[in-house]
Amino acid sequence: MIDLNADLGEGFGRWTLTDDDALLSVVTSANVACGFHAGDPSIMRRVCALAAERGVRIGAQVSYRDLAGFGRRSMDVPAGELADEVAYQIGALEVFARAAGSRVSYVKPHGALYNRTVHDPGQAGAVVAGVRMAAGAAGLPVLGLPGSLLLSAAAEAGLPAVPEAFADRAYTPAGTLVPRGEQGAVLHDPEAVVARAVAMATRGVVTAADGSPVTLRARSLCLHGDTPGAAGLALRVREALAAAGVRTEAFA
Amino acid sequence: MIDLNADLGEGFGRWTLTDDDALLSVVTSANVACGFHAGDPSIMRRVCALAAERGVRIGAQVSYRDLAGFGRRSMDVPAGELADEVAYQIGALEVFARAAGSRVSYVKPHGALYNRTVHDPGQAGAVVAGVRMAAGAAGLPVLGLPGSLLLSAAAEAGLPAVPEAFADRAYTPAGTLVPRGEQGAVLHDPEAVVARAVAMATRGVVTAADGSPVTLRARSLCLHGDTPGAAGLALRVREALAAAGVRTEAFA
Amino acid sequence: MIDLNADLGEGFGRWTLTDDDALLSVVTSANVACGFHAGDPSIMRRVCALAAERGVRIGAQVSYRDLAGFGRRSMDVPAGELADEVAYQIGALEVFARAAGSRVSYVKPHGALYNRTVHDPGQAGAVVAGVRMAAGAAGLPVLGLPGSLLLSAAAEAGLPAVPEAFADRAYTPAGTLVPRGEQGAVLHDPEAVVARAVAMATRGVVTAADGSPVTLRARSLCLHGDTPGAAGLALRVREALAAAGVRTEAFA
Amino acid sequence: MIDLNADLGEGFGRWTLTDDDALLSVVTSANVACGFHAGDPSIMRRVCALAAERGVRIGAQVSYRDLAGFGRRSMDVPAGELADEVAYQIGALEVFARAAGSRVSYVKPHGALYNRTVHDPGQAGAVVAGVRMAAGAAGLPVLGLPGSLLLSAAAEAGLPAVPEAFADRAYTPAGTLVPRGEQGAVLHDPEAVVARAVAMATRGVVTAADGSPVTLRARSLCLHGDTPGAAGLALRVREALAAAGVRTEAFA
Repeated sequence: MIDLNADLGEGFGRWTLTDDDALLSVVTSANVACGFHAGDPSIMRRVCALAAERGVRIGAQVSYRDLAGFGRRSMDVPAGELADEVAYQIGALEVFARAAGSRVSYVKPHGALYNRTVHDPGQAGAVVAGVRMAAGAAGLPVLGLPGSLLLSAAAEAGLPAVPEAFADRAYTPAGTLVPRGEQGAVLHDPEAVVARAVAMATRGVVTAADGSPVTLRARSLCLHGDTPGAAGLALRVREALAAAGVRTEAFA
Repeated sequence: MIDLNADLGEGFGRWTLTDDDALLSVVTSANVACGFHAGDPSIMRRVCALAAERGVRIGAQVSYRDLAGFGRRSMDVPAGELADEVAYQIGALEVFARAAGSRVSYVKPHGALYNRTVHDPGQAGAVVAGVRMAAGAAGLPVLGLPGSLLLSAAAEAGLPAVPEAFADRAYTPAGTLVPRGEQGAVLHDPEAVVARAVAMATRGVVTAADGSPVTLRARSLCLHGDTPGAAGLALRVREALAAAGVRTEAFA
Repeated sequence: MIDLNADLGEGFGRWTLTDDDALLSVVTSANVACGFHAGDPSIMRRVCALAAERGVRIGAQVSYRDLAGFGRRSMDVPAGELADEVAYQIGALEVFARAAGSRVSYVKPHGALYNRTVHDPGQAGAVVAGVRMAAGAAGLPVLGLPGSLLLSAAAEAGLPAVPEAFADRAYTPAGTLVPRGEQGAVLHDPEAVVARAVAMATRGVVTAADGSPVTLRARSLCLHGDTPGAAGLALRVREALAAAGVRTEAFA
Repeated sequence: MIDLNADLGEGFGRWTLTDDDALLSVVTSANVACGFHAGDPSIMRRVCALAAERGVRIGAQVSYRDLAGFGRRSMDVPAGELADEVAYQIGALEVFARAAGSRVSYVKPHGALYNRTVHDPGQAGAVVAGVRMAAGAAGLPVLGLPGSLLLSAAAEAGLPAVPEAFADRAYTPAGTLVPRGEQGAVLHDPEAVVARAVAMATRGVVTAADGSPVTLRARSLCLHGDTPGAAGLALRVREALAAAGVRTEAFA
């Protein structure tokens, strides 16, 4: 059993990016953009409505305030401000999730904030503080990279820490992602992506860039939604998982 | 018994405007800016914390998305988008109100949105739709001008419609505000403002610009917080009300 | 001889909209977005470079400050501020036009500002004032709707006023555009669009919605660039004009 | 002879920060905010008009795109985008400088961009590339910290590199600024600030935090404009310089 998540609702005003309708037929968890790197209130409402209708879990994809850079530029936001910005985004999304009869059920940082909270303790702690501020006593799960400071900060704060894996990214023998920009960092062959997804879900392993096997304990697989063919590939991954006897279901 | 409300938290990042600390010692209801015309997440958190600490009711001061114009420029936002934007702002503020142990307890439009929803049925309805989307079955009171389409739309939707009056604004014999820009539209004499506040609260009347008495049924008085001396004048109004035997208390 | 213009560079950050490369092979004048409704500095630089390389004239497509609404929502911007905003946008674009060895050679308002300056004398005058502020003594041509207050204000201010026509929009017998939203306001049949473009360029006439012929004195035809197939249709229009003996060339 | 510069025009919309009128009576160079961290088109026009009227030189105070953080948060903007953003800001300001009968005569980065280009070669080079893009063959002087990569990159590119000093900041024995946040980083005693300004201008020395004398070759002194009493202190500095026989004049 595994969760499939994808970034959704990443348009803004006149602009669209992700094929939300198609992906919401495939994934079990929707990382909905909350307006800081993408996503406007109307997009958020529509994605939440469709997700709720199809039984897809809604998560807040929180980001630096950076529409011009799509949240992909690391920013030295002081921890207190960052926590407040995270809480603000979660609260805004919660309105649309509830209006659709659902709830915000987890939080996942986007782009540069995702990458930075892998190793920056101040910002990792700030994201967790923002989640706690918004979620109250009940808390909310945090989705992130296995081994990241974000997940350890979440666990320390008593929040469920949910590790995810990427079927279309190359891994180092140490189990970290090969940085984008390096040769072969992103896999483009659909067959290979599908095979890796199945190996990750059934055996908890992935073949590293040097050919060695790496153990990965992921409870969710992240599928990309912002490239042409993304929805088609996501569907193939889901079907291959089903054929391999893996049930796709939102993480508990 | 009357409520005193003021616009608060109207800074942004490095900029400050309203003397939130002083005004939160005077008013009974705080119209907190939600980030669309002013207010950033950290300001929102601080104002909510202080309001909760002092027992001041928190309201969402929702606006057009217009930082550059401070929400004072009327915009032809389609009704559906406007409703979504209103809901987004309420949801974001709710997080900080709850974190402070309080709740968003009412909604008041800001600036151009306030003025436009006096007479524009589409936008008045959109604000009410946004409130209902954010507030769920319980609903939330809407604060506005007596006789405005906003208040009638709120009432039709089953939301409490709370009329307010302005002690520092001139009224026409018909009970509407003399438009800003016209001679004498804003009263600058503190004595006169205080006297009018008392007359409004005790007798429900105000002297119109032509000298005739006008009946006003206001459950809240709006005090301005963005001018020098605003906090001092607000305090004088509150003290004069107390001396006249009027209790200041958030509307029920 | 006629000019062909299109709105270009209407992406923002991660988002793209117009097929700038293809359209810059067809049009003779490029209305480049300047960052207020779309367009970021890097897009502006790239579009200017490509336009200059292909001998396409560069114009500033100025807009209300409204990324979320793509400049399509009318805003009550005071005239002085609007003039300053128009000048700011022209100045920013001029840098990239000059860096590419070209110049900003005309100005055309976008979206709601285009529509509003047809009939609003204050805003029409503000746009013209902004053009004069940015362009200095030499001035710059203003592109707009025949009969609009914008063009008459430009002419009064001594700026060349260049009327344009739309091959894919229905006209009333009075020569104004059938408003979007009305039945048949936009023509979708490529054959019809091409035929109208040729009729407009060769005979200065268009068949109105009621079948009557209308005289149009347009020096430029506006082609839309933000729909699928836009570039292909634009090319067909250009080829049909060539076949009809009409030279396409930037207006003098 | 020395130049006095200050950051001006750092309001936005409804918000004001710097006392532009008072400071423009004191300084010889105005670092005008260009809209990315502060400054809107109308403020830019007014500051340029007043600067030109009083013979104060106009410079572009360029920044990261970060209104919410007032440009004080370091951002990993790719070099190409950063160069384009710098050029955009210079071009926008040029319009208002020219409309006032003046010109943009130099460039100074603001806040986090100022600090980062002290030591980050990629971003220092990007700022210089942006200046060259906007300024064309003639180029423009760049104002910055002595020893910064920004000034060396400017000099390598053939642009005049103008070193500045801060009379109200503590220096290390190596001649670098004691970081804000450290004890004693900012001097608050007006007498001390004035005395240091005179020592810097007349003898090219400053006493470091450990008491040792440090040689500083500054052609401009930066006065802060965003604190209460800033304008009064700036005037005292100017008068003390005059009394010491130092002429205040924009750098050549």
